[in-house]
Amino acid sequence: MAEEISGLEFLKSFDIFANFTDEALKRLLSKVEILELDAGMPLFAEGETADSLYVVVSGEIKITRKIGEDMEKDVSLLGPKSICGEMSLFSGRTKRIAGARAKSYTRYYKIHIDLVREMFVGDPEGTSRTFKAMMLARYHQLAKSDRELATVYELSRLMGSDLNLKEFCHSALELICFSIPQAESGLIYLLDRRSGDYIRRGEVGYEQAPEILYFDPPAARVIGLSLGAARMDPIVVSDPLRTAGMLKGIAEAKAAIVMGIVVDEKLAGYCLLMNQSQVFFEKDCDMNLLRSFSVLLSSAIDNRSRVSGFGGH
Amino acid sequence: MAEEISGLEFLKSFDIFANFTDEALKRLLSKVEILELDAGMPLFAEGETADSLYVVVSGEIKITRKIGEDMEKDVSLLGPKSICGEMSLFSGRTKRIAGARAKSYTRYYKIHIDLVREMFVGDPEGTSRTFKAMMLARYHQLAKSDRELATVYELSRLMGSDLNLKEFCHSALELICFSIPQAESGLIYLLDRRSGDYIRRGEVGYEQAPEILYFDPPAARVIGLSLGAARMDPIVVSDPLRTAGMLKGIAEAKAAIVMGIVVDEKLAGYCLLMNQSQVFFEKDCDMNLLRSFSVLLSSAIDNRSRVSGFGGH
Repeated sequence: MAEEISGLEFLKSFDIFANFTDEALKRLLSKVEILELDAGMPLFAEGETADSLYVVVSGEIKITRKIGEDMEKDVSLLGPKSICGEMSLFSGRTKRIAGARAKSYTRYYKIHIDLVREMFVGDPEGTSRTFKAMMLARYHQLAKSDRELATVYELSRLMGSDLNLKEFCHSALELICFSIPQAESGLIYLLDRRSGDYIRRGEVGYEQAPEILYFDPPAARVIGLSLGAARMDPIVVSDPLRTAGMLKGIAEAKAAIVMGIVVDEKLAGYCLLMNQSQVFFEKDCDMNLLRSFSVLLSSAIDNRSRVSGFGGH
Repeated sequence: MAEEISGLEFLKSFDIFANFTDEALKRLLSKVEILELDAGMPLFAEGETADSLYVVVSGEIKITRKIGEDMEKDVSLLGPKSICGEMSLFSGRTKRIAGARAKSYTRYYKIHIDLVREMFVGDPEGTSRTFKAMMLARYHQLAKSDRELATVYELSRLMGSDLNLKEFCHSALELICFSIPQAESGLIYLLDRRSGDYIRRGEVGYEQAPEILYFDPPAARVIGLSLGAARMDPIVVSDPLRTAGMLKGIAEAKAAIVMGIVVDEKLAGYCLLMNQSQVFFEKDCDMNLLRSFSVLLSSAIDNRSRVSGFGGH
């Protein structure tokens, strides 16, 4: 009974179920399959016929899309209390437009779409409210994807422009700070190969940061260490104490994202995104966007630094 | 009367109206405002309160998103027979999540959401079919955006990898050919600064293309000419005769996309995407993706060509 009630509350936390009666949801729950997957096992494949939707109870599901005959790319990660496959409700028995695979050991509900459709038919009023809420959620997802695409396209436009190094760094920082709402300010420091110092080459919302760093800054050491392992992956620092230690002598902030700028596999500088007023966490950031930004920034700076004498050359 | 009937057929061509009766649509039509905008005039601004949806009769509307305090970026273009602003139907009176502006002289219907809601209330059955069709369309749009993002992110991953020039060209071509279904095959030729020839450095689906071009290929001349005007913009060639002329001595194809690879503002090579079996048109291609691909390809080749001796160095 406790299991059933908690299952009920669990279902009601989703848009798709929130507008139906307890009775209807209990009937649904009694027919739900509770299943599990080990890490790496597929939930469904892109192109497969879709007849069920899935609710993640615990664990993580990767959503993947084919980007080549034998290549696939993770496009998103669904944690506990996520739902996927609900498109099949609207499309009839069509093909999955994405694949799904367990990232870690995952427990989930498998709910046949016929069961949900039955519930829809029994309550037109609830169905109408449900459709509205779901439609709105899709519009917001679309807005997020479109904005992310616009950011990446604008960054590649900047890369193709004839901005000099300093102008490029400033514009790129402006762009990424706007796209990551948690980033209130940003700094780019690049290694000057003559002096061996890190020189400020871009700043947004943080003009009082030092122009030159005469010592090896802690942030650079952290990136230097991480280069050996997961090369170029941005680091999100959410602990104010750790943030203060890492940014010592550079800036005051409660949370920071630290990205290495890598040229010829050597650290040629770094980009810092900061939040002075609040702590934020990795889950708030789009790691795909940050990773891509970090690579594109490095590549553009590599090209421009040959002219200016900054960077790894 | 002729006007009314054609207006009726016009409305019925949209998901949102297709499932309602002629009577309901005629009632709606009698209250629609038919308006016009000159090129450059705003239809609505991002952040503005949303109370209407818009149907483009003739002309073009740009959809824009803010990517900075004073920066906006075009994210899509709506031609004749497009609809926008329909999110307001589901959200109540909320803010626009994107802006819209006439690209050319545009005639459009402005339809207050209360009129559409009235029609929905009067026909629950039609409303349910409408919601399903619209929801499905949003899922497909999301899939397109996600795939485009996955492509750009994968390309930036390739840029940050330690692939050599030839491996990079091959992988990048595979990626873009998969993302643009009209591109059945692809070639990359890069200028060898020692011999002055264009050498094949990447091919997908077209192994019989010549390894070396001993003459200045027509495609290169076309790109060279276009460099002065709209720098780096990919050219979509849909006319089989023009395609044959442009690709003379390189490949046989009915349609082609020609992209310049530009290093230090000079033409350092080019990327050709081809379709041997059918003609396609500019509207089938995502120009944002192509433009971005062209810039990123140029930047990555610039970095890698210093090592290999190819490209503009």
